[in-house]
Order: sequence, then structure tokens, then C-alpha cells
Amino acid sequence: MRTTGKLYVVGIGPGSYEDMTIRAVSALKDSEMIVGYTVYVDLLREHFPEKEMLTTPMRQEQERCQMAILEAQKGKRVAMVCSGDSGVYGMSGLILQLAENAKDLEIEVIPGVTAALSGGAVLGAPLGHDFAVISLSDLLTPMELIEDRLKNSALCDMVICLYNPSSKKRADYLKNACEIVLQYQKPETVCGLVKNIGRDGEEMEVLTLSQLKDTKVDMFTTVYIGNSMTREINGKMVTPRGYKNV
Amino acid sequence: MRTTGKLYVVGIGPGSYEDMTIRAVSALKDSEMIVGYTVYVDLLREHFPEKEMLTTPMRQEQERCQMAILEAQKGKRVAMVCSGDSGVYGMSGLILQLAENAKDLEIEVIPGVTAALSGGAVLGAPLGHDFAVISLSDLLTPMELIEDRLKNSALCDMVICLYNPSSKKRADYLKNACEIVLQYQKPETVCGLVKNIGRDGEEMEVLTLSQLKDTKVDMFTTVYIGNSMTREINGKMVTPRGYKNV
Repeated sequence: MRTTGKLYVVGIGPGSYEDMTIRAVSALKDSEMIVGYTVYVDLLREHFPEKEMLTTPMRQEQERCQMAILEAQKGKRVAMVCSGDSGVYGMSGLILQLAENAKDLEIEVIPGVTAALSGGAVLGAPLGHDFAVISLSDLLTPMELIEDRLKNSALCDMVICLYNPSSKKRADYLKNACEIVLQYQKPETVCGLVKNIGRDGEEMEVLTLSQLKDTKVDMFTTVYIGNSMTREINGKMVTPRGYKNV
Repeated sequence: MRTTGKLYVVGIGPGSYEDMTIRAVSALKDSEMIVGYTVYVDLLREHFPEKEMLTTPMRQEQERCQMAILEAQKGKRVAMVCSGDSGVYGMSGLILQLAENAKDLEIEVIPGVTAALSGGAVLGAPLGHDFAVISLSDLLTPMELIEDRLKNSALCDMVICLYNPSSKKRADYLKNACEIVLQYQKPETVCGLVKNIGRDGEEMEVLTLSQLKDTKVDMFTTVYIGNSMTREINGKMVTPRGYKNV
């Protein structure tokens, strides 16, 4: 009988071993090879020293997925790892697209704690009510559509969680995003940011929307813009679960 | 020295032990008492048989949080458990609000895999691009605002993940939600639903928006409405990570 291998797509959470699910750890233990972006594979190396590791630099997502599919098709048990969740801006969609014709390949998608949630826990409870998750990266998405999403989310008072808020080439994207939201939400709207979630150098800050507009962040930061009910409580960012009473 | 206890607010994921993070398991092990909604505490009983358990029925969230705070203030290590994440429609916000004046009480919020992510992994990769998470429960939120959020999310082509899509008293809420989205998205938009995620009786279905409109779901179902790029691939629901190429 031909072995067809198995491909896990694993969300490993924000980075520390403790923030992985038991299911994710089991999948990594069961795998012979771990494939991923260099930074995340390095986080796993000390916990799984016996595994074969295959890394590709950032932006080579398609090559990375092709490599993982190919190794699994050769009969290996392979884990493609993603930071946070496997699906939220993760690799599971690309894997399923690229493996469309590899129907005999067993693929198991394992969810993980995405940055919106892990950063949210650090800040307190910013996502206690309806929210939008929006990436400010315009590599694969027209900027007009991103701006439209910011506008629409703000005007119906949804909390907004921003991924990829900045990079060297996009230093002013967060400022622009805040200016759009400021057309619909007050300058004193409670906002938050978390840097290096669950890793060395973790930092959090609760601030107003007008302060956020003039704050520089890096690509390892997750940003939260509250709704009209969001409050600062003892230094934490808290969005109540509704508009009535508590 | 007076002991002030500790209060963990723990997201336990969709329900199975394997979907908890290692941090969540450690917090439960460290706790003397586990407090929560009856259904979720029962899921934990077999894994933590030695712990004192305190449950309250659904809708008594405020009483439940008050109880947990009080026990921790007495000096106990208490875990307040939430299904999914501790923050997304969870108890962490309410705990922080109710403990506003208990400044010496140590509170640690531990995130978990919310239904949007765990159900997403079952369906494939519905949340591969920007998305909105919206609850259809109008207990604490005006229905006009919920409808406004559905409309705004659909018109800027965000994927929509619906929590609390139905209950006995709200049998037609999902139908109404679909009718709103149908004003902006095509009837053949790829949608998905997952029932009893990670538990006995787990079921998933990929279907079109017009089929979803006439589908009856229960309160243990999470619903996904795709964007214009979402596709069905080998029975899975996949939203590509952008609008350019793959």
C-alpha cells in the first residue's frame, strides 16, 4: 500500500509553548518535518529538537506551501506552522487551494489563538462585543477596499482589530487608518496596542484614538480601536458586552 | 500577611480537552475552584475531578462573576471558565468591570480558541481575509445596530462570522440576516456552518447564501458568510488571502 503521508496546518498561537493547544502539540509530536517561516520555526526548535525543520523567508508563502505539500505527498507526516491561527491570515487557505488536485492527501487544519485574542487578553477585554479584523497590508488587497472596511466598521460602531499595522514601506498606514476612523468615532475613543505578544519584550499600552494616530508601531504590533462603549478600567481596555446596563 | 487570592478568566476553547491551551490547563490545575456555566463546567469535571465546582445557569453571568470575585477575595485561587475565548462575548470584560474597585485582586485573563477559529478549521479556511464577528443576539444590543453591522460588513465585502445565530425566541434571525447580506452579496456566495464544534455530534456544511437563508440552525451553531472571493474547494470553504493571484 502506498503511503500518502499527512499534512497538518497548525496554528501555534502567539509564540510561547504555553499558548499552544494540546492538539497543536500532539500534531507537532506526530510530525516528522516542521515547515514554516524562519522566525516561527525557530520558536519551536528547542521544544522539538529531533524534528526535521524546513524554513523559507517571509513572503515566500506559496513556495513554503508547495514544499510542505510535496513532502507530504512523498509519504511524510508534515506540519506547516503558522503564528496565531492557521486560518486568520494563515496558510490553511493557500494549502487547500494549492492541494486542490491532490485529493488523496490527508490535510488536517488545527486552529490556534490568533493575535486578536492573545493581545486582547493582555489588554483586558477589548473584543467583548462585535468586532472587525482588518489587515492594513495592501500587498494583495487594494488600499481603497481596506479604507472602505475601516470606514464601514467605524460607522456602525464595531471594535476594530488591526493586523500588519505598519512596516518600513508603510510607516504612515496606521495614521491614515486612524484619520478615517476619526471621521466617525470620537478622538477620546479608547484604543490599545500590544507588541511582541507572549514573547520577550511584550509591551501593552492603552491610549486614545487621537494619541494612537500619532503613535509609531512596528509589524509585530496588534492594534485595537474601541467602540463608543469601550472604557479604560484600571489601566485595561474593556468593551462591555452590550449597550444596556453592564 | 493577608492572602488576596487570584482570579483566572480562562477561555477553554470549543469544549474538548485537546483544544485547550497549555496555559489554560495550568491555570485550571492551579485553581482550587472552577466557576462557570453548567454546560462548560460539566465538560471539565472528568479532567479535574478534585476541584470544587460552582455553576450558574445561562443568563446569570453577572451573578456568576460576582461569585467568582467574592471567592477570590476570600483568598481562593478561582478559575472563571468561558467557552471559546475569555474575551470574545466572554466574561473577562464583565469581571474587569465588576472588580473595578477590587484593586488588590490579581486577575489573569487567559485567551482561548474562539468558535470563529475552531469552526473555521473544521470548514477549511473561511477567515483567510478581513472579517467581522457579529452576534445576532439582541438581548443587550439594539436590533437596528446589528442590522447596520451586517449591512456595512457585507457592502465592503468582509467575511462575516455569526455567533448566536438562533434560539427558540429568535428562530427567524438568521433568515433576516441573510436577506440583509443578499442586498450586497450574490445568492451563490459560499457560506458554511458548523454545529457542536469539537464535541459529540460535530457537523459541518458548505452551502450558498441563498440556501443558508432557508436553513434552520440552533444556538450551538456558528455561521460563516463568505466574501466575493470565497470558494468551495473539495467540500471545504476557502477565502483567499487577497484579491490578487492566489
